[in-house]
Amino acid sequence: MRDEGSEATGDSPTLGQVGEFAVIDGLVRGRSQPLAVLLGPGDDAAVVSAADGRTAVSTDMLVQDRHFRLDWSTPHDVGRKAIAQNAADIEAMGARTTAFVVGFGAPADTPAAAVDALADGMWDEAARIGAGIAGGDLVSCPQWVISVTVLGDLQGRAPVRRSGARAGAVVAVAGDLGRSAAGYALWHKGIHEFSDLRRRHVVPQPPYGEGAVAAVAGAQAMIDVSDGLVADLRHVAELSGVGIDLSTAALATDHEQLVAAAAAAGSDAWAWVLGGGEDHALVACFADAAPRGWRVIGRVLDGPAEVLVDGAQWQGYAGWESFAG
Amino acid sequence: MRDEGSEATGDSPTLGQVGEFAVIDGLVRGRSQPLAVLLGPGDDAAVVSAADGRTAVSTDMLVQDRHFRLDWSTPHDVGRKAIAQNAADIEAMGARTTAFVVGFGAPADTPAAAVDALADGMWDEAARIGAGIAGGDLVSCPQWVISVTVLGDLQGRAPVRRSGARAGAVVAVAGDLGRSAAGYALWHKGIHEFSDLRRRHVVPQPPYGEGAVAAVAGAQAMIDVSDGLVADLRHVAELSGVGIDLSTAALATDHEQLVAAAAAAGSDAWAWVLGGGEDHALVACFADAAPRGWRVIGRVLDGPAEVLVDGAQWQGYAGWESFAG
Repeated sequence: MRDEGSEATGDSPTLGQVGEFAVIDGLVRGRSQPLAVLLGPGDDAAVVSAADGRTAVSTDMLVQDRHFRLDWSTPHDVGRKAIAQNAADIEAMGARTTAFVVGFGAPADTPAAAVDALADGMWDEAARIGAGIAGGDLVSCPQWVISVTVLGDLQGRAPVRRSGARAGAVVAVAGDLGRSAAGYALWHKGIHEFSDLRRRHVVPQPPYGEGAVAAVAGAQAMIDVSDGLVADLRHVAELSGVGIDLSTAALATDHEQLVAAAAAAGSDAWAWVLGGGEDHALVACFADAAPRGWRVIGRVLDGPAEVLVDGAQWQGYAGWESFAG
Repeated sequence: MRDEGSEATGDSPTLGQVGEFAVIDGLVRGRSQPLAVLLGPGDDAAVVSAADGRTAVSTDMLVQDRHFRLDWSTPHDVGRKAIAQNAADIEAMGARTTAFVVGFGAPADTPAAAVDALADGMWDEAARIGAGIAGGDLVSCPQWVISVTVLGDLQGRAPVRRSGARAGAVVAVAGDLGRSAAGYALWHKGIHEFSDLRRRHVVPQPPYGEGAVAAVAGAQAMIDVSDGLVADLRHVAELSGVGIDLSTAALATDHEQLVAAAAAAGSDAWAWVLGGGEDHALVACFADAAPRGWRVIGRVLDGPAEVLVDGAQWQGYAGWESFAG
């Protein structure tokens, strides 16, 4: 049941045939938990280490055909994405991810092997972070709904909030910008080239570990780019009471592939870079220099609380909103 | 927006009209967090106190028309139920509930006032426990899906697991048995009498605080009755490697109303008491006597790992299974 190729085959028994408890048993059995998971699945609650007396916690819900499509993504991909985007929220506080709990709703006729592949994807991504899946819930639902809650360890540090940016700081990024949005456009238009961009859309690659690096380096403020660079930095600008000016010259590094993909898709690469979410890059403000591995892309100004691009308002697409379109 | 009567009116603007961020703003503004919530909503993650260096964590997903019906329950009721059933999982470990995070999916045409009422119900129930709602996610979904994750504080004690029951112990319960199932049957058959039982179905009343009482009293094993008394105790029996014998004479206390409701509904009150879930009573095993406020309903036997009723197999309905029916 554990190889990726077996998912969603017509031969697999369904959730309804296997039954809730047997499916859960199969998902849980043989997984090895990290040390931070003191008590794993199988009781009314799990117990997770919170070494410094605090737990960072965040939750995200993914709905089929809204946040993922099973004709673009394998169940394994969906599992990886659900874990990755939640872990990015913990990274953005400067914390280390310890554990996840997962709620999963799916129709009774879902192949049990697809659920197994989803869980394998979750575990594979969690293993990249050194975290465990400590518990969950499996219910009947008309479409797939995945709800992930992530716990993190601040390791004795203050959380890096959105509200701490101060004029004079540099704005720097770790991770991808615009690649998930590019991949979405390519999938949407049925363009088969640029497979690495299409891949980034189905499985984002947050810069794991860089959140803690930023916190140790004294980041004033940090956020993960889930909705779009401009939209997310607007939260930092408003909560910090500062302006943020992004530089297209600085953002244009490594831009050639996006420009080529945008030409193929009839899109604007800048809309992807400035307005595309789901890459789960980390963006942070540092008083002086950014730490190694981070790219400076702008600077923090004395108010008003707005995000500029090369000193001007950005007129293009700025980011995702859940109930739009 | 905060009075219960205003929910789900046709006059309310919808989620699509108000927009994700404004709705969240309305849900978050003016709520007062308990001390355990060190950092509430508004950042990438919340921070919750975990005083003894551990966090108990559990998650449950509720799907419209599967776990609740909006023609039986108000949004406020649904909010209370979602919080209550999650808190019961923390109680069952012998822990104290500190905070919740909530994922909520709903169609764009959902009245914003209904979401406000749902959140009010969650906050009202959380306030009964002394806990806060530390964060959440709001997404578009074809039907209502509510995913609650609860965090708890073990207060320095070992978690009370399902696996610790030992022969010779007494089995005792705190809270209701069979009332939610009775209420379900009454709603289902359109019977308008027994309003308190119908009410218990839409809003269960877990015995808050009794989980910690049981732990302090030395409970060997504990579980919350979410699927059904026999079904849930079967987990205790199997994980502890013991038999459990329930006494109908002991369970028949306070049974008259259920018998009357069963007669009206053409049902069997014992199927409700022994097989009905969702009351979120706590059932625990104690070496000697049960603590004050707990009712002894059976005893723990040397194996085999099974649940008996008056010394015999229970042939009736034993409990809920997610993908059945």
